[in-house]
Amino acid sequence: MFTPSQLIDQIDKHISLLPFDETPAGLYDPIRYVMQLGGKRIRPLLMLMAYNLYQDSVEEILDPAIGLEIYHNFTLLHDDLMDRAGKRRGKDTVHKVWGENTAILSGDAMLILAYRYISRVPADHLKDILDVFTCAALEVCEGQQYDMEFERRQEVSEVEYETMIRLKTAVLLAAGLRIGTLLGGGSRKDADLMYDFGIYTGIGFQLKDDLLDVYGNPEVFGKNIGGDIVCNKKTYLLIKALERSDSFQKESLQHWMNKECDPHIKIEAVTKLYNELHVRQVCEERMDELYQEAVSCLEKVEVSSERKEELRSLVKQLMDREL
Amino acid sequence: MFTPSQLIDQIDKHISLLPFDETPAGLYDPIRYVMQLGGKRIRPLLMLMAYNLYQDSVEEILDPAIGLEIYHNFTLLHDDLMDRAGKRRGKDTVHKVWGENTAILSGDAMLILAYRYISRVPADHLKDILDVFTCAALEVCEGQQYDMEFERRQEVSEVEYETMIRLKTAVLLAAGLRIGTLLGGGSRKDADLMYDFGIYTGIGFQLKDDLLDVYGNPEVFGKNIGGDIVCNKKTYLLIKALERSDSFQKESLQHWMNKECDPHIKIEAVTKLYNELHVRQVCEERMDELYQEAVSCLEKVEVSSERKEELRSLVKQLMDREL
Repeated sequence: MFTPSQLIDQIDKHISLLPFDETPAGLYDPIRYVMQLGGKRIRPLLMLMAYNLYQDSVEEILDPAIGLEIYHNFTLLHDDLMDRAGKRRGKDTVHKVWGENTAILSGDAMLILAYRYISRVPADHLKDILDVFTCAALEVCEGQQYDMEFERRQEVSEVEYETMIRLKTAVLLAAGLRIGTLLGGGSRKDADLMYDFGIYTGIGFQLKDDLLDVYGNPEVFGKNIGGDIVCNKKTYLLIKALERSDSFQKESLQHWMNKECDPHIKIEAVTKLYNELHVRQVCEERMDELYQEAVSCLEKVEVSSERKEELRSLVKQLMDREL
Repeated sequence: MFTPSQLIDQIDKHISLLPFDETPAGLYDPIRYVMQLGGKRIRPLLMLMAYNLYQDSVEEILDPAIGLEIYHNFTLLHDDLMDRAGKRRGKDTVHKVWGENTAILSGDAMLILAYRYISRVPADHLKDILDVFTCAALEVCEGQQYDMEFERRQEVSEVEYETMIRLKTAVLLAAGLRIGTLLGGGSRKDADLMYDFGIYTGIGFQLKDDLLDVYGNPEVFGKNIGGDIVCNKKTYLLIKALERSDSFQKESLQHWMNKECDPHIKIEAVTKLYNELHVRQVCEERMDELYQEAVSCLEKVEVSSERKEELRSLVKQLMDREL
């Protein structure tokens, strides 16, 4: 069995060998650029780890795993354009470098390339794998649509928020785990369990992201602290804060949300309210619940406990991560 | 065997039954809107006609045929956004009605839905059909990239132009014909011939479009006459005009291309130059060559001549069309 970092090396090597140097360069250069920006490669990693529960080598599924990563990077490319974000992983975004039309078209080509790579599976699995991927890919679009709609709304409930992040983030992790399990030879029941394991992990992963935006170490986090607060993003923390606040605190929160001012002052004021309302603890408790649910799914998978150790510790790391 | 109009009825009926009323409505409403704008449905029609050469019923391949039409409409949606076009088939474009972000995201979802429908083929054909479709879909993106690059260039050669329209328009028609043939049970050789038949037909179809933009009957054409001239689109007519003009005529053409003026005056002046240079005849001769090539491929397909009659007359109609 491989460790996550060994698997990530294989993924990165495979990505560096992708033949994306075709013509027209105006279409393929941005694709190579995006794929080489790096990132944690969590989606292909989880697919390989699921496969690795059943099989010792992972060579055979590097192509579909990379397909999932191409899809994920396609969503980042189009999301950054929709958000007018200027930076991604410290580098200029594609629409900043090449313009909006290139960002649209190169993104479209990436979605097609994702299908090309994901389809490189044994013929007897192809239909199943495609169905799993297509379903998840469509749900990611639905999640992004909800995310954009929530920006224009005053209130979003916890249930609505978790539905949104399940669709936007968790289903793709879960789909990767399901695909890895099916290709590895796991049973349908195992594949369902691994899918659910991915859903709980993915939601927890996103909650952690919400937490890090406020309480992260700026040197490790890689993004500016308080970015979500500045743009009034309806994160788990804000939703819980609004839910738990008395009328005075609620007025204060809404005052800051409607205010245009020095971002540092706003971040400080809202963080102070979050602290008063203990939303950090509330979020950590929810993450712990999700972690327990995730692990309980994993335990039921019919593979020896030792083989599951890497996945168990990875999900712990993802939820504890400072990165 | 069915006539084209019987097949189009089946296609339109199948499209009207698509279950695109899911949530979030903000994602799916624009998709339903685009799919119901109408259009000639040529790509699914050709797929059904190819299948109909070998099989009497076409029910079984309505899903993949509709998949091809969803893909085509996705490209129109994103192309209209990239061109900032306000109208499509007389109606407001999606980005005009719902905004740019919706146009991006609903388009992405359509590309995924296209794969869902195209994948609904017998398991033993799935890999082949996906390869044919993915290859064509990627080439369409390449064609669109060339098209955008050509807009910024002073000169484009005839070969470059035909390559661009082959990628942007012809390969998808050809892919539909290849898929219909393979699913119908035709041989690989027949599938290749039908593909080439589609390439020649598709290029001819685009040249006809270029012609109609200048010489079409505005009441039948549905678009404004001279639109390509106004925006200096490097059509077959312009490329041939530049190629055939003496230094005086070339200067005159370039003068009009660089000029901002009343569109009617520009259209009249450029059309006059086109007439002097006989580019209409040159274009019609090229279309005739393409028609002959197309028909010669069709003749070699190992199906009785009578069964091929509908396709033969359709391609004639497409090239002669006033619409």
